[in-house]
Amino acid sequence: MQLFFIDEQINPDEVVTLAASDFKHAVQVLRMKVDTKIQIADGTATAYPAKIINIEPVTSTIEAVITGDPLADTELPLAAEIICGLPKREKADWIVQKATELGVTRIIFFAADRSIMQWRANQVDKKLTRLQQIAHDAAAQSHRRRVPEVDYWPKLKAALPTTGLNLVAYEEVVKEHEDFGLVKAFKQLQTNPETVRMIFGPEGGLTVSEVAQLQEVGVQPVGLGPRILRTETAPLYFLSSLSYTMELLK
Amino acid sequence: MQLFFIDEQINPDEVVTLAASDFKHAVQVLRMKVDTKIQIADGTATAYPAKIINIEPVTSTIEAVITGDPLADTELPLAAEIICGLPKREKADWIVQKATELGVTRIIFFAADRSIMQWRANQVDKKLTRLQQIAHDAAAQSHRRRVPEVDYWPKLKAALPTTGLNLVAYEEVVKEHEDFGLVKAFKQLQTNPETVRMIFGPEGGLTVSEVAQLQEVGVQPVGLGPRILRTETAPLYFLSSLSYTMELLK
Repeated sequence: MQLFFIDEQINPDEVVTLAASDFKHAVQVLRMKVDTKIQIADGTATAYPAKIINIEPVTSTIEAVITGDPLADTELPLAAEIICGLPKREKADWIVQKATELGVTRIIFFAADRSIMQWRANQVDKKLTRLQQIAHDAAAQSHRRRVPEVDYWPKLKAALPTTGLNLVAYEEVVKEHEDFGLVKAFKQLQTNPETVRMIFGPEGGLTVSEVAQLQEVGVQPVGLGPRILRTETAPLYFLSSLSYTMELLK
Repeated sequence: MQLFFIDEQINPDEVVTLAASDFKHAVQVLRMKVDTKIQIADGTATAYPAKIINIEPVTSTIEAVITGDPLADTELPLAAEIICGLPKREKADWIVQKATELGVTRIIFFAADRSIMQWRANQVDKKLTRLQQIAHDAAAQSHRRRVPEVDYWPKLKAALPTTGLNLVAYEEVVKEHEDFGLVKAFKQLQTNPETVRMIFGPEGGLTVSEVAQLQEVGVQPVGLGPRILRTETAPLYFLSSLSYTMELLK
């Protein structure tokens, strides 16, 4: 069943108007009609079952009525952010799409020392707009209640908030037995579900210097198991095990 | 550091010859030379640190000597198999690559009722050979100790082994409170680490009939959290949370 996001708060007794930007896709691609059942998630991250009652091509308007109680939440019980060194080619698209399915609340790309791909300052807005659309579509498809934000930090250390639990995926620490431990981090979150962020290197990894600078501001290095994970896989390991711990294990 | 697979068992006191099929990539792409440090994993899934001592272009031969004790294992402590309804386009490549990084021991594709992509009988070998190469390369990159097998089953139910723990990812059961529970499954594996298999539907999911037939032969339906996961994401959720449970939580 197709889910749509709207910005306003839903009043279940009133007609809801879908976003004009959804009109073309809903009518021409999904071929929705009057009486089609849908879900609508509003600006308070609450979703309702609904039914289309009117399609007006002249104004690109779709109107719907709410047909039941609010649906169960599908969001992680805490804010989870991934901070990724800019990867090559279309991997950023993949990361945004898959991380959104897995519940991420914010995806930040940064210019890592080893990032081969660079974003020029005048390209950033266009790239973020495109990735934000990917996040929007993935959030709708996976029946999220909110759309994750996609951001870009030219400088990682300066932009990193000091609140929350900050981690960096770095397998060298496992070998040197300096692993703070993902298990320890997750146990901490189960007791105190604050915002958790994990930083990931690009292809080639983070440099020793980058990790040292992060440790200076309290970022804890953690290992993600014994195998080497690609830059686009590691965030999915983190989010999947976080979901398993916070949503299934509880 | 590059890892190479060989079929035979390594004798640490003898010169090791790499597979001829690795010659071109090692020398022309990776530009390896005499004294380059490498890792070699042998037919017993044991890996050693090594050093190249001779490169012979005429016979496409690379010889190396073992330079230390066996390396720590990087394999999951149990056999883990994913059984995937044939997905569209290049998603099969992606699934094989990512699942291999995450430790899968066998990847089986099958013709699901809703699979849009079909493999004709005379195409199967060629497709499997190609996917097997992707698994080989991903296993080497992620420093696995063995290469997972890639297989194809025209008929799922008939081919499914009755030994081990068989699960099917099916979110409908969560809604109907018939969820066997991934947590329960993993707890069972922690006590009794037998082979675990999870079946995944293609785009559009498994049909009610397919799931009913699987339940008839003892397959347990499990949910993978509250969000809808794409056909290529769900296996990664399973393998990541399995790794977290069996390798990190222990």
